[in-house]
Amino acid sequence: MRFSNYYIPTLKEDPKDAEIVSHKLMIRAGLIRKLGSGLYTYLPLGKRALRKVEEIVREEMDNAGALEFSFPLLVPVELWIDSGRWNPDKKELMRLKDRNDNIMVLSPTNEESFTDFFRKEFHSYKQLPVNFYQIGIKFRDEIRPRFGVMRAKEFLMKDAYSLDLDEESLDVSYKKMRDAYYNVFRRCMLDTISVKADSGDIGGDASEEFMVKSSVGEEEIVACECGYIANIETAESVLEQDDNKEYDLKTIEMIHTPNVKTIDDLVQFFDITAKKFIKSLVYKADNKSILVLIRGDYDINETKLKSKLGIHNLELADDETIFDISGSPAGFIGPYNLKKDIPIYADFSVKDIVNGITGANKKDFHYKNINPGRDFQAQYYDLRLVKKGDKCVHCGKQLDIFRGIEVGHIFKLGDKYSKAMGVKVLDKNGKEVTPLMGCYGIGITRTLAAIIEQHNDKDGIIWPITVAPFHVIITIVNTKNEELLKLAEKIENDLEKQGIEVLVDDRDLRPGFKFKDADLIGIPFRVNLSEKALNNNSFEIVRRKDKEIFYVSMDEIIDKLINLINIENKKER
Amino acid sequence: MRFSNYYIPTLKEDPKDAEIVSHKLMIRAGLIRKLGSGLYTYLPLGKRALRKVEEIVREEMDNAGALEFSFPLLVPVELWIDSGRWNPDKKELMRLKDRNDNIMVLSPTNEESFTDFFRKEFHSYKQLPVNFYQIGIKFRDEIRPRFGVMRAKEFLMKDAYSLDLDEESLDVSYKKMRDAYYNVFRRCMLDTISVKADSGDIGGDASEEFMVKSSVGEEEIVACECGYIANIETAESVLEQDDNKEYDLKTIEMIHTPNVKTIDDLVQFFDITAKKFIKSLVYKADNKSILVLIRGDYDINETKLKSKLGIHNLELADDETIFDISGSPAGFIGPYNLKKDIPIYADFSVKDIVNGITGANKKDFHYKNINPGRDFQAQYYDLRLVKKGDKCVHCGKQLDIFRGIEVGHIFKLGDKYSKAMGVKVLDKNGKEVTPLMGCYGIGITRTLAAIIEQHNDKDGIIWPITVAPFHVIITIVNTKNEELLKLAEKIENDLEKQGIEVLVDDRDLRPGFKFKDADLIGIPFRVNLSEKALNNNSFEIVRRKDKEIFYVSMDEIIDKLINLINIENKKER
Repeated sequence: MRFSNYYIPTLKEDPKDAEIVSHKLMIRAGLIRKLGSGLYTYLPLGKRALRKVEEIVREEMDNAGALEFSFPLLVPVELWIDSGRWNPDKKELMRLKDRNDNIMVLSPTNEESFTDFFRKEFHSYKQLPVNFYQIGIKFRDEIRPRFGVMRAKEFLMKDAYSLDLDEESLDVSYKKMRDAYYNVFRRCMLDTISVKADSGDIGGDASEEFMVKSSVGEEEIVACECGYIANIETAESVLEQDDNKEYDLKTIEMIHTPNVKTIDDLVQFFDITAKKFIKSLVYKADNKSILVLIRGDYDINETKLKSKLGIHNLELADDETIFDISGSPAGFIGPYNLKKDIPIYADFSVKDIVNGITGANKKDFHYKNINPGRDFQAQYYDLRLVKKGDKCVHCGKQLDIFRGIEVGHIFKLGDKYSKAMGVKVLDKNGKEVTPLMGCYGIGITRTLAAIIEQHNDKDGIIWPITVAPFHVIITIVNTKNEELLKLAEKIENDLEKQGIEVLVDDRDLRPGFKFKDADLIGIPFRVNLSEKALNNNSFEIVRRKDKEIFYVSMDEIIDKLINLINIENKKER
Repeated sequence: MRFSNYYIPTLKEDPKDAEIVSHKLMIRAGLIRKLGSGLYTYLPLGKRALRKVEEIVREEMDNAGALEFSFPLLVPVELWIDSGRWNPDKKELMRLKDRNDNIMVLSPTNEESFTDFFRKEFHSYKQLPVNFYQIGIKFRDEIRPRFGVMRAKEFLMKDAYSLDLDEESLDVSYKKMRDAYYNVFRRCMLDTISVKADSGDIGGDASEEFMVKSSVGEEEIVACECGYIANIETAESVLEQDDNKEYDLKTIEMIHTPNVKTIDDLVQFFDITAKKFIKSLVYKADNKSILVLIRGDYDINETKLKSKLGIHNLELADDETIFDISGSPAGFIGPYNLKKDIPIYADFSVKDIVNGITGANKKDFHYKNINPGRDFQAQYYDLRLVKKGDKCVHCGKQLDIFRGIEVGHIFKLGDKYSKAMGVKVLDKNGKEVTPLMGCYGIGITRTLAAIIEQHNDKDGIIWPITVAPFHVIITIVNTKNEELLKLAEKIENDLEKQGIEVLVDDRDLRPGFKFKDADLIGIPFRVNLSEKALNNNSFEIVRRKDKEIFYVSMDEIIDKLINLINIENKKER
């Protein structure tokens, strides 16, 4: 392909709205352009790279026995009502009304369409197990689209859905996908780890995220030397006991605590460890008020709270609600002597507090000597947010926390959708049973961006050979020289016969400018064709990733390139 | 691929809502399933065939020098306002409001996004000509989705957009696409003709449709032996003169014509040729009333009317409007003595009428001796709908009319969008000029359906080799026989090494049932593996299209199949 016939509008300057490397480089290397907030156009070079990733995903899905098919992007809302996922207030969900005022959802994921497909088409254990996948556009009305294609309103996604007769079979299907995911990310040269995760709105029994370690990632991951790893939303750690535990339950006292509100203030005021305090928070949980308690040295993990209590919508209550429940302004609420009786949930850390301190439901007052069990009743769960330095529940070592980009997510849905939407099959004994589902997603556009996050230097992108839009760029140093043009054409033809994709930079521009462009767009190997090289019969092949230069004679160019590409491929497969 | 690992749910019965062959066969052969009105799921076999068509389109676009890229499916309404195409009453256009109440259009075509891209990125003649294409989902809120994927709410489309400096260059770009379209349809083995067409809502200077002749087509095509061919919406024919023309203009008379309303009634009542009558119709044209006249033996072509007068929304006026303008009920309106003055447009056929008859704007009365020019003024255009038997304007022979399916449409848009949206480039002299656009669409899903319309028999689909989801099906007659299973695997492997795609029917079902399924899903070649064939070393290869059977020994199977497939491929390329 001639550069002059192609369209790669490289830019010198970083775009103003780009915060992360992949976003900057995708714009600068002419891979994408912004059409609107969270909406990106893929230019030819970007589309070419994207299709490489797509093809790797397709091959690995095919290898794993999943069958490609495709659903409409529009989904009648009736299916969402059926599954119980329809919530008109859920703003991330794009939807429209058609000419007959029917509501159609623009798929963010396709569980409903699949479950409907399964219930219509699958009636016997003989048809199972099955796994179908599709590669297509998905929609999410992001409140704050950012980071380029990393968090956009439209994105290319692979989603797969399996149906199995029982747990054992689901385990096999799930493992096949898990293995396929490792293959995909390895082939994309992405350093990826799988992390136990919360299933969120999709739901189900268990889920794992595939994470690319990156300082710009939006997910927090908890990890231990021993191998324990989990998304912060589900991570657990050892509950540290209070070393100075008391045993005698004392009588409650009310203490005047003017202008003392935060835990730090209280620690200072009472001159006592934060482990003595019971933090009390009022939440609106699916429009019901609840009181949630945790020990003063911990924070509440709202994702755990939601998942453990089966809450869909959770938010902190407003001042008015707090006043209504407590009879006092925010900051002085506590579980004892509430004005209004509401359910109380507490983290395990609260259970063993003896003679604790908590708000007195009265402005500028706290209670001393509050004792769980004696002074209030609560239901106990693990609701703690893990902190860096917390101890691992498996080995006791200190936990580390780092950030990651979620590129894949696999779920054991179990019977969540199949039960809600009435999928039934006959088992071997002719008995009707509810089969189990799994679902498996890869963000293809996000994977592309993550590859760039992991493969770049100050000069631009460094494409792994497996997803490079072209394998080789031939830079003609002097485009006035006919001999060089002919040589470029010959090398291009010879390489293309070997399945190697070539871009010929035939633009009438300064060589330095062309070298810079080649580095920016990140083609793995560059061949420089200059008059000097021709005269000396010594041609430069430059490897992008380390700028190493290999000198070869004209006759050796092809073999050397094939050899270098094979080395890269071997490493990466 | 094993049939038992694949998913091809064939059906014996035609689906109740299917009216045309392709729709029936796509459901019965397990290619598609309906998710909702006008919304179809592609099952694995259908997806595979669709991808074959997609790949042919991609290759031909690449060969023609067009560059693949992709736009978001959502388009901010501002771009549609910019281009002048935004019309909130246009119900076919799907749109939604996002979380911030911004309107987003779901692309039916992408002229706006492209023009915006061009105006942002192209500033010099040096960057031209360019042609970009994408393959993706498009949306249309059909008032009456029908014929399966032929007229659906979502469909896969290839759309390309070119930008050229001048007419001459646009002609070249247009011709390249036209040639590429012929290649695409020839490779798909679709008997296709190109037809001059109206540019409709998309607009521009000239357009051609690619039509597949089919009795179930929704388009009418006018054709002549001499080679003249046009969509009925733009077709022209010779205006037949009235042989008994008068020359003396007589005085107007008002005639009582009770219960005489239609042209047939009038012909009978006045005992005179229909050529004497001036038919008068009131339309609402973009919310303005207009009177349109045509001679009694002709009908008005509303598409011509719209395009010649630049009307966007056209509909017949209601009775109330007619009464308001004419002072009489519908059926008695005429251009002379109207109660209200409205613009009058007439077909050329009206111009030479002498002493014509027309409604008297009074219930049960007509005027005699009405003369254009003397009694009313009108603007004249060709507004006639061509009828079968009309004479060709080129050779005078009688025109034929047949039906067709539109699979492609190419447009010279000229400066319609580039001007409206302010695309400007500098020419060689440094002068700012408005470059010209072309746009080029292929309905990929519709092409697939059209292929089935042209390639089927009573037993099912007959895939052309170029788009067949598999080239060969190996039917194992007795799946209990280990030797046959092994042989199937060997043949499959040997063929796949040659790039031939194989489906092995390993299902434990009656042979007759499996043969029927093979015919229904239309795989071009079937190899029957039976114990008898094994014993006699004489195997049957059945060619789907004519059921011809070729007998070969075990050693000859592969070579014979390769040979038969090559014959099909050669024919089709």
